[in-house]
Amino acid sequence: MGCIQSFRQCCDRPKNTNVRISLPAVCFVWQIAMIILFGIFIRYNEESDAHWIEHKTSKNISSNIENDYYFRYPSFQDVHVMIFVGFGFLMTFLKRYSFGAVGFNFLIAGFGLQWALLMQGWFHSLDPMDGKIKIGVESMINADFCVASCLIAYGAVLGKVSPVQLMVMTLFGVTLYAVEEYIILSLIHARDAGGSMVIHTFGAYYGLSISWMLYRPNLDQSKHRIGSVYHSDVFAMIGTLFLWMFWPSFNSAISDHGDGQHRAAINTYLSLAATVLTALAISSLSQKTGKLDMVHIQNATLAGGVAVGTAAEFMLMPYGSLIVGFCCGIISTLGYIYITPFMEKYLKIHDTCGIHNLHAMPGVIGGIVGAITAAAASEDVYGKEGLMNTFDFTGEWKEMVPTRQGGHQAAGLCVALCFGIGGGIIVGCILRLPIWGDAPDNSCFDDEIYWETAWHHHLL
Amino acid sequence: MGCIQSFRQCCDRPKNTNVRISLPAVCFVWQIAMIILFGIFIRYNEESDAHWIEHKTSKNISSNIENDYYFRYPSFQDVHVMIFVGFGFLMTFLKRYSFGAVGFNFLIAGFGLQWALLMQGWFHSLDPMDGKIKIGVESMINADFCVASCLIAYGAVLGKVSPVQLMVMTLFGVTLYAVEEYIILSLIHARDAGGSMVIHTFGAYYGLSISWMLYRPNLDQSKHRIGSVYHSDVFAMIGTLFLWMFWPSFNSAISDHGDGQHRAAINTYLSLAATVLTALAISSLSQKTGKLDMVHIQNATLAGGVAVGTAAEFMLMPYGSLIVGFCCGIISTLGYIYITPFMEKYLKIHDTCGIHNLHAMPGVIGGIVGAITAAAASEDVYGKEGLMNTFDFTGEWKEMVPTRQGGHQAAGLCVALCFGIGGGIIVGCILRLPIWGDAPDNSCFDDEIYWETAWHHHLL
Amino acid sequence: MGCIQSFRQCCDRPKNTNVRISLPAVCFVWQIAMIILFGIFIRYNEESDAHWIEHKTSKNISSNIENDYYFRYPSFQDVHVMIFVGFGFLMTFLKRYSFGAVGFNFLIAGFGLQWALLMQGWFHSLDPMDGKIKIGVESMINADFCVASCLIAYGAVLGKVSPVQLMVMTLFGVTLYAVEEYIILSLIHARDAGGSMVIHTFGAYYGLSISWMLYRPNLDQSKHRIGSVYHSDVFAMIGTLFLWMFWPSFNSAISDHGDGQHRAAINTYLSLAATVLTALAISSLSQKTGKLDMVHIQNATLAGGVAVGTAAEFMLMPYGSLIVGFCCGIISTLGYIYITPFMEKYLKIHDTCGIHNLHAMPGVIGGIVGAITAAAASEDVYGKEGLMNTFDFTGEWKEMVPTRQGGHQAAGLCVALCFGIGGGIIVGCILRLPIWGDAPDNSCFDDEIYWETAWHHHLL
Repeated sequence: MGCIQSFRQCCDRPKNTNVRISLPAVCFVWQIAMIILFGIFIRYNEESDAHWIEHKTSKNISSNIENDYYFRYPSFQDVHVMIFVGFGFLMTFLKRYSFGAVGFNFLIAGFGLQWALLMQGWFHSLDPMDGKIKIGVESMINADFCVASCLIAYGAVLGKVSPVQLMVMTLFGVTLYAVEEYIILSLIHARDAGGSMVIHTFGAYYGLSISWMLYRPNLDQSKHRIGSVYHSDVFAMIGTLFLWMFWPSFNSAISDHGDGQHRAAINTYLSLAATVLTALAISSLSQKTGKLDMVHIQNATLAGGVAVGTAAEFMLMPYGSLIVGFCCGIISTLGYIYITPFMEKYLKIHDTCGIHNLHAMPGVIGGIVGAITAAAASEDVYGKEGLMNTFDFTGEWKEMVPTRQGGHQAAGLCVALCFGIGGGIIVGCILRLPIWGDAPDNSCFDDEIYWETAWHHHLL
Repeated sequence: MGCIQSFRQCCDRPKNTNVRISLPAVCFVWQIAMIILFGIFIRYNEESDAHWIEHKTSKNISSNIENDYYFRYPSFQDVHVMIFVGFGFLMTFLKRYSFGAVGFNFLIAGFGLQWALLMQGWFHSLDPMDGKIKIGVESMINADFCVASCLIAYGAVLGKVSPVQLMVMTLFGVTLYAVEEYIILSLIHARDAGGSMVIHTFGAYYGLSISWMLYRPNLDQSKHRIGSVYHSDVFAMIGTLFLWMFWPSFNSAISDHGDGQHRAAINTYLSLAATVLTALAISSLSQKTGKLDMVHIQNATLAGGVAVGTAAEFMLMPYGSLIVGFCCGIISTLGYIYITPFMEKYLKIHDTCGIHNLHAMPGVIGGIVGAITAAAASEDVYGKEGLMNTFDFTGEWKEMVPTRQGGHQAAGLCVALCFGIGGGIIVGCILRLPIWGDAPDNSCFDDEIYWETAWHHHLL
Repeated sequence: MGCIQSFRQCCDRPKNTNVRISLPAVCFVWQIAMIILFGIFIRYNEESDAHWIEHKTSKNISSNIENDYYFRYPSFQDVHVMIFVGFGFLMTFLKRYSFGAVGFNFLIAGFGLQWALLMQGWFHSLDPMDGKIKIGVESMINADFCVASCLIAYGAVLGKVSPVQLMVMTLFGVTLYAVEEYIILSLIHARDAGGSMVIHTFGAYYGLSISWMLYRPNLDQSKHRIGSVYHSDVFAMIGTLFLWMFWPSFNSAISDHGDGQHRAAINTYLSLAATVLTALAISSLSQKTGKLDMVHIQNATLAGGVAVGTAAEFMLMPYGSLIVGFCCGIISTLGYIYITPFMEKYLKIHDTCGIHNLHAMPGVIGGIVGAITAAAASEDVYGKEGLMNTFDFTGEWKEMVPTRQGGHQAAGLCVALCFGIGGGIIVGCILRLPIWGDAPDNSCFDDEIYWETAWHHHLL
């Protein structure tokens, strides 16, 4: 800890927020690198290549509708909306940081998805025949998923970092994600359709650790800008609702064709509905006169979608989904009331959007629910083929049984936690270097630092 | 009437808007009840159960793409957006009630869809083998449809009721809906793909009757808050446009696979386009200098979607759809100009969002158009198989003919009207009890009653 | 030029913005004309007609899922969102013209799509058997595409024209579009899945030419209203993001079933991602302290989607898409910085939304990229059947080869340019007549001219 403290002090030099060299440089260099790497590695897969018509004949596929595109593209577009409008607008609640919220969200996602296609491609879809990565609609969904974890992390540091720091954070975040995803899904053979562990747990702890490393003791100089105005809260509801509505697509986007996608959508739909009621109830209980708090409505209502992520494709049962949503609405809202202030005061972790309550805790709960549901799976409930199909007990995992699968799920959760916390601390160290152009303590949460807003002060 | 008057007076005690006990209590009790009832009754249907893979083999289904999920899920997501963003944002137009609009809309819908799955399940999809309700993607769409009727009703009382009242209104609304839907669709065998009768007529008269029962003679104390500001009108356009754009999905979501869905989408698309022009024209005509009124653009442009609901899956013909839209744009806009003030002044029905113009009148027109179109159906136009298929003249309805079907459609419309008006009066009585925490007459249309808004007054 | 000048002067009479007669008259007359023409000409096609069930049997189609509806409806809905929310909200950035942006966008689109169904129908889907136009989901997408070109044109004249002028502009715009589309796609046999040439190049030059004809030398009297406020910029981001996210659906909506749609979506997804980074980089470079400009983020980030439109369905390769996006982000942003002011000052073309940078230049680039990619196509890359399939070398075009196809693509681009510029000049002349109710120079960009806004001045 002493070492960390002294490193912190060494980094605390006067701030220069001019990013005119660094931001364009990073954007250009990385984009050019992407082009070169894409040129070397990335090709269309057999379903998006012009040879599809021959492939179809050779594999005896009866119709174009069997192309994976038609199974997944609607879900992909819903996920895409969640990434750009959902996460982007959810963060617009701050009275003076709406441009930064939606604009930097755009930047992170635009860069992150390219890098994710490469990183995930190397681990998951490298064609051994020609050494190329073959991409299709599922790759785009996975890239969006990967980006989601970085955007969750952004929530913790919203308003306190520069766009250059965000690019660095995304570069490392995507890299770490691809590795932990490979370990969890491929090596450990855990299932995680909606990414409770892989996306939410990892992303949230990655962001919280970075926020801890970047702790600003004098942040109260910007305190008056931490808060919303009437219309910024309405804008944030756009983000909330698009996340809430499309979460069934998120959790079902890459699960099995047929019953897998169908069931994942139903479970998520139900879990989220239950969350709305308990989040509202706790919000009302927490105020002297029973008034509701927009922060809870905007965020805690989503916790059920996170927590049902892993188990969504399992036979969680409709009432099981409701129970998960019920609990998460309560826990998440209580988190906003008690845990976020506690973390800031005692743990020195400032969490702008409260991602600990929306992603970290529900993500861990989701991992545990997934482990329990997997361990409790039986041929009675799933059917013999259904069980094999749902848990992918094929190939080298032919001998797997549900109880052991439960253990593997739990192991997956631990890996996500370790990568999140460990990775976040290391990347946080890097981001403390006084070269990234972040704002001084008295100019946080202010769009004027990085945006042209000549008219700004006259109006707000 | 005298009896109603004295009941009204008895209920007019001083108001206490503290909902700290009642709101959380209702939320928790009802959510726990939902979990128990879901545990007893609700299971996955054969297309979302893990046994799907065996079911597929046994029924000789060639591909996963034949799962109903792929026929309906994109439409479901569009409907979902209409329910949460469409209805929610449409009501944000009031200058100080945007939180209440979008937040309580969220609450109603989150609770309503769970209760709807149960109520509709008992009537429509109870499996006689095991006494369970089997749900799938179509159940989710139907639950969203049912919730829509309650949200329409909310439009009439927007800003004048407490969240607890809304929960009670939704509980009864969903119950009534399930019964009238069963009578109209199953007993009477009327067709109503887009719900002109079942959803819009019922929902609108339910809401108007409640508003009549809850009439506040001194509402002019809150008059200065009935109106919009510039940006609240822009927010409302988000709601308008998402409703308008996705209405083709709404009307086609549960119609027959193949040509049924295809035709319903086309008819709705065309009807709505015509409505835009006539609504705008009448709006411009109604002002001395030809200026347009945002209220008309936000609402009357949608009337064509309501009115084409029943007949959308029939062979209404493209020009028929345009005619329906043409008329409804005119009628709905005239309604805003003449009928809404008339109803408030002489009938003592205050209708905050003008649902009489957007849902009630177009809904009734839709029912009539449906009856006429059905009665005029012929084998020439539909083909022999097409006629049977479109009107479902199978099983016990094998002997049905189009002319009689027209009569049944008209009967369905009457049932919807009776349930709406009758149910609304009874529920309105209940909601007059002075225990629900609604706002006094001088604090209506104000978010401050139910929302934490410390900064509010400084800014607006 | 002298002739044009004198025509201009003759038209410059005092302005009367009362549209109470003209706007309703135009709306009613045209809508009634639509009903009559639809009655005479438009019918359902075999996939949306009730005879589908018989058609299915006769054509040996195995399942309802083979109905084109299921291939294209999700993309249609995404395109629909782009037209109404995307274009509508993108233009809400002006501080006092949000109603006009989203409201007139609604009007243009609502009328345009009906007229487009007719015009495109006459050219493309007239059934020779009965002289009727047969419509289905693809017709709706094409109608939306056609409307897009008129909305692009609206961007150039935003705030300077009356709704009646917009209706006239749309009537002619749709007509010209249908003709140039017929020439480019059918006569010249150019391919243009995403409409870089047909939609964007044509639409942008059509709008710019009209804006040139309607040049207002004294527009600086309204200069103080050309600009945004904080929340109007956030509203505009809603438009930007929905355009950005759904662009892959736009470019793939009408391309070939199977690999064609799949590949078009991937290429667009990648191109747009690259554009974000370079647009941001140039934006930051252009300011002394590296601050970002919302105008660039809102607009230039979309250029990659325009430029990849023609080639999206070709084997452009993932890195090729990135390169296109990379270049367009740079060019488009530089356009906003240098070319727009230049055009206003020296060419007397005022371009409110900067469509020259977002649609014109990227559209031309897209046409060129398409020509090169087509000319470079080979059987190696596409496969024998894939090449025929992708470029539709069938029927009378059986003997076509890729190199010649490249020439045809280039010819198509020229046609789009000619129709845009020529048509715009002629229509611009018509719109100069002093009968359309447009605003005087000191009342441009002001919603008060055409909208009831009693409360307006108190609040902004």
